[in-house]
Amino acid sequence: MDLKQIAKQTAQTLTSYLTYRAMRVVVDQLRETNPGLAVWLGSFSSTGNLQDGEAYLTELMQANRELALRIMTVREYLANEIVDFLPEMARSQIQAANMMHRKHLLERLTQMADSPPIDPTEES
Amino acid sequence: MDLKQIAKQTAQTLTSYLTYRAMRVVVDQLRETNPGLAVWLGSFSSTGNLQDGEAYLTELMQANRELALRIMTVREYLANEIVDFLPEMARSQIQAANMMHRKHLLERLTQMADSPPIDPTEES
Repeated sequence: MDLKQIAKQTAQTLTSYLTYRAMRVVVDQLRETNPGLAVWLGSFSSTGNLQDGEAYLTELMQANRELALRIMTVREYLANEIVDFLPEMARSQIQAANMMHRKHLLERLTQMADSPPIDPTEES
Repeated sequence: MDLKQIAKQTAQTLTSYLTYRAMRVVVDQLRETNPGLAVWLGSFSSTGNLQDGEAYLTELMQANRELALRIMTVREYLANEIVDFLPEMARSQIQAANMMHRKHLLERLTQMADSPPIDPTEES
């Protein structure tokens, strides 16, 4: 398990997600001020290339540089405003969700205590 | 712009991504010890339901509870080991990438300084 590599790729995923959220913020703002451009940006951004935030921005920079610059500004703002809260939020979410899954498993096992054991290779 | 809502959904995305990475760690471990199960888990996990880490684990818990518990343990470990580094990494990545996009734009504009202005509505 290469923790350094996993951390780097997780940060990249986070960056791409913040780019996607910044795009949605800009689309919402444009709906008020320039609905046609909002539709154009929504359509441009729905082609799946937002999986890689930098490739997306490189392409958008060619198509409409003002929008690309605006999304870059918004994602930097989002990064500054929210990323410091994420470690605690993600850790709490994982701990709470793990506890919920274990609780459901325990309930299921308790209900089935008198039934024969399940074959794990069998289709459920 | 609802920052609280964006932070919450970003943390959920992070949690689901860590669940996905935990699955990949377990698949890699199983390749050494139980190749058949590695193939089974890889195949089970490729149906796209890993977009929602909790739905994925709920389903896996029905199909193979040992693997679900193992992925839960690994994702909690990953969360504890790497999430504290992510704010600084994501912020740095965004700042560096924004600078790179602005630099490329500047180079492009400088090269085109003698050309007529571009019509932003035109297909590029």
